[in-house]
Amino acid sequence: MRTRVIPQQVIARKRDGHTLSAQELEGLLEDYLDGHVGDDQMAAFLMAVYFKGLDDEELDVLVEVMLHSGEVLDRGGAGAPRVDKHSTGGVGDKVSLVLAPLAAELGLVVPMMSGRGLGHTGGTLDKLESIPGFETRISLARFDRILGDVGCAMIGQTEEIAPLDRKLYALRDVTGTVPSLPLITASIMSKKLAESLDGLVLDVKVGEGAFLSRIEDARALARAMVGVGAARGLVVTAVLTAMDRPLGKTIGNALEVREAVDCLAGGGPGDLREVVTELAAEMSLAGGLVPDLGEGRGRAAEVLAGGGALARFERLVAAQGGTLALSGDGYGLPAAPVTRVVAANRTGVVARIDPHALGYGVIPMGGGRTRQDQEIDPRVGFELRVRVGDRVSRGDPLAVVHGASKDDLFIGARVIHEAVTVAGGSETAPLRLVLERVTA
Amino acid sequence: MRTRVIPQQVIARKRDGHTLSAQELEGLLEDYLDGHVGDDQMAAFLMAVYFKGLDDEELDVLVEVMLHSGEVLDRGGAGAPRVDKHSTGGVGDKVSLVLAPLAAELGLVVPMMSGRGLGHTGGTLDKLESIPGFETRISLARFDRILGDVGCAMIGQTEEIAPLDRKLYALRDVTGTVPSLPLITASIMSKKLAESLDGLVLDVKVGEGAFLSRIEDARALARAMVGVGAARGLVVTAVLTAMDRPLGKTIGNALEVREAVDCLAGGGPGDLREVVTELAAEMSLAGGLVPDLGEGRGRAAEVLAGGGALARFERLVAAQGGTLALSGDGYGLPAAPVTRVVAANRTGVVARIDPHALGYGVIPMGGGRTRQDQEIDPRVGFELRVRVGDRVSRGDPLAVVHGASKDDLFIGARVIHEAVTVAGGSETAPLRLVLERVTA
Repeated sequence: MRTRVIPQQVIARKRDGHTLSAQELEGLLEDYLDGHVGDDQMAAFLMAVYFKGLDDEELDVLVEVMLHSGEVLDRGGAGAPRVDKHSTGGVGDKVSLVLAPLAAELGLVVPMMSGRGLGHTGGTLDKLESIPGFETRISLARFDRILGDVGCAMIGQTEEIAPLDRKLYALRDVTGTVPSLPLITASIMSKKLAESLDGLVLDVKVGEGAFLSRIEDARALARAMVGVGAARGLVVTAVLTAMDRPLGKTIGNALEVREAVDCLAGGGPGDLREVVTELAAEMSLAGGLVPDLGEGRGRAAEVLAGGGALARFERLVAAQGGTLALSGDGYGLPAAPVTRVVAANRTGVVARIDPHALGYGVIPMGGGRTRQDQEIDPRVGFELRVRVGDRVSRGDPLAVVHGASKDDLFIGARVIHEAVTVAGGSETAPLRLVLERVTA
Repeated sequence: MRTRVIPQQVIARKRDGHTLSAQELEGLLEDYLDGHVGDDQMAAFLMAVYFKGLDDEELDVLVEVMLHSGEVLDRGGAGAPRVDKHSTGGVGDKVSLVLAPLAAELGLVVPMMSGRGLGHTGGTLDKLESIPGFETRISLARFDRILGDVGCAMIGQTEEIAPLDRKLYALRDVTGTVPSLPLITASIMSKKLAESLDGLVLDVKVGEGAFLSRIEDARALARAMVGVGAARGLVVTAVLTAMDRPLGKTIGNALEVREAVDCLAGGGPGDLREVVTELAAEMSLAGGLVPDLGEGRGRAAEVLAGGGALARFERLVAAQGGTLALSGDGYGLPAAPVTRVVAANRTGVVARIDPHALGYGVIPMGGGRTRQDQEIDPRVGFELRVRVGDRVSRGDPLAVVHGASKDDLFIGARVIHEAVTVAGGSETAPLRLVLERVTA
C-alpha cells in the first residue's frame, strides 16, 4: 500500500520553489487520479507550477505518470518506421491533413492522434469532421487495422490514452493554467510516447497567431520536448515555423480541407507546400528513409506532384467512413450558403495579416469554439485573396467571407478589415517561414 | 441581472500581474458564492494572488464582499465603546481569556469571535471548551444578551458571519494558500468589521512560533490591517509582540486556562501579565476610556490586582454554561491522568525554548489538530519550569509533561529535550516582548 501524500504540504513546497522528490510528485498525481486529491488542490498545484516550473527530473516523473496512466499502442514488431508529427497549433494550419498521407506514401507508418480547436487555433479533428461521414472516434483495434492497410490513420485522444493528461488538460483549461512550458511539454509528449513511435517531428509555431509569440519561448519548449524524447530513446526533431500570418489562404474547417486537397494534388498555396515539404523531409530523415533533408525534400515534392499522396488520402478517408468527390467542384465538402467579397478601401501594400484576429474572427460565425463542448459549423470561414507584401488598389478583393447567414457576412467583413492592414509606403518582408531546427 | 465573469480570464489576468477592476473581482467572488465558479477555479485564483498580491483597491473589494456576504452585528445604539482584540496566533497564547473580562471590567463591551487551533498554534475556542459545560456555539441573540449582561462574550465565527470568508478559509487550508498577506488581512478584517466595533487592537505575533517570523512581514501585515480599518472609520492599533518563545509557561488547553485564571487573579507569569496589560491599555485608549497608554496600563494592573477581572470571568463562564471551581486546586478543570518531570541532562543556561517544536509537540499527544475536524484532548500539554536565560544544573526540572497515557509522556519528554536548549557559555537575552506599535 502506497503512503498517501499530504497534498497541501506538496503544494506549499512547490509554491516555495523547492524541487519535489519523485515520491512526492508521483504520490500527488496518483492520489489525484484515484480521487484522494481534489480538483481544487490540483488547480492550486498547477498554478504553483506555472510560477515555479518543474526541473528535468520532475518533468520526467510527470510524463511517466501521465503515459502510464493509460495504454501504450502496440508497436507491432518490425515493419516500416512509425513517425508522427505534432503542431503546437496555429491559424490556417491544415498541415496534418496533407502530411499524414504524404508520409505514408513515402514509406512511413503515421499513427496520428490529434486535437480539436480551442480559442483562436483550429484543430485537425474538426477539419476532418467537415468531410461527410468521416469518423474520428474509432476503436484502437480499428485504428490499428487502418494503419496496417493505409499506412496512416487519424483519431482523437481516446479514453485509453493518457487519461491523467485528459483530466489535467480539462482542469487547466478552466483555471488559467494552460500556458506553462513544462505542463505543455508533458501533455504533448505523454500522448506522443503512447503512440510507440520511432521518430517524432514537432512543428512549433512562433508569432502572434501561435500561443508562443517569442522565438526564445518557442525554442525553450522545443528543447524541453526534444529532451523528454531523448531520455526515452525517441528521435525528436522540432522545426520552428512562422505564425505571424496565417498558413495558406483559408481559415475555417471545410475551406481548409479543400486547400489541403489542392496541396495533395500538387497545387495549393506555396507557403503550405513549403512547410509540408520541410516536415515530410524531417519525418523521412527521422524514420531513416533518406540520408539527408535535401533528398527528403526532393522525394516529398515528387510524391506530391505525382498524385500518390492524394490517392493515399482518398484511401484514408474511405477507411474512416468519409466521402469526398475529388473530381467535382468543392470536392463534395459542405459549402456556406452565402459569401461576400471584402474589398480594399484604399490603395497600398498589404502590410500585415493578423492571424489572431482571423482565428478569433471565425468563432462568432460558428466556426470555432470557446468551450470544449461547443458545436462547430464546418462551412464558415475566410478565403484570403492577398498575401503580405502584395500591392492592392482600392476596390481590389482582400478576401471572401463564407457565412451561414447574412449576419455572418457583416461580422466577417469587419474581421477582414481589422485583420488585413493596407498601408502606404514600402513593402515589408514577413518572417521567414521555416525559422529554426532543434534536435537532441 | 449581473453579467457573469469568465473565470479563467480573470484568473489569467491576476496570474499575469494585472490589477483587477472592482467588477471583475466582485463578479468572481459572487459567482463563487453562488456556485458558478468552482473550488478548482478559486484555488487557482488564490494561488495567483499568493504570487501577485492584491493592491489596496482590490483588497478593499475583497473585504467588502466578504463582510457583506453575511450579517453585521447590531451595534445597539449608544453605550459603552465596543472594542475587540485579535491575535494572529502563537504558542501558549491565552491572552484573550484574560483580556476579554479585564477589558469589560475596565468599561468596554467586548464582542469576541475567536478561532480554533490549527497546526502548531492553539485556539481560544478550544481553550474555552476545556472548561466543563462551556458553550462556544450559541445564537447571535444569546451572544447579544450576554454582551449586555456581562460586557463580554466569546464565540466562534457563526454561519451568519462572513460566510465567504469561511468558504475561502476552508479552501485555503487544503490548497497551500494560507500564508498570503492580503488574504489573511481580508479574512481577519471582514470578521472584525462584522462585529460593529468602535476600536480594534491587533496582536501581531513575530518569531518562529508565529506564522510570520520576520518583523518586516509582521509590520506589513499590521499596516495592511490598520489601513483597511482606517478606510472604514475603525480605529485599529496593531501591537507587534515576540513569539520567539512561548507566551507564559503552559502549552495545552486546560493548562492554559489554569494559567489564565492565575493571571486574572493577579498572579501568573510576568510575560503574560505584560502582554495583557499592554493590550488592555491599547483597548482602553482605542475606546476613549483613558487619555494615554500609561494611564491605561495603570488601570489594567489595578483591576487585575483587585480581583474584578476574575469575578467578571466567572460571570462570563456561568453565562455561557460553564462551571469552574475557583477555590479548588486546578479550578475544576480536566486534569491529565499521568505526568512526568523532564530534567536537564546537562548544566548550563537555557539558551532557547522553541515554540514551534512545543506547538507541534502537543499534536501527537492529542492536544492539537492537523485537520479542522479532529477532536482535542484538553488535558494534555506542557508546563515549563524554566525560562530563556535561566541557569540550570543537570537533573533540574525543565518541564512537566501532562499526558493521557504513558506513551504521551515518552513523546512529550522527547519534545521537551528538542525544544529546550541548555547550552554552555553566557546567557542570551530574548527579544523584547512588546516590539512595536502600528497605527493609522
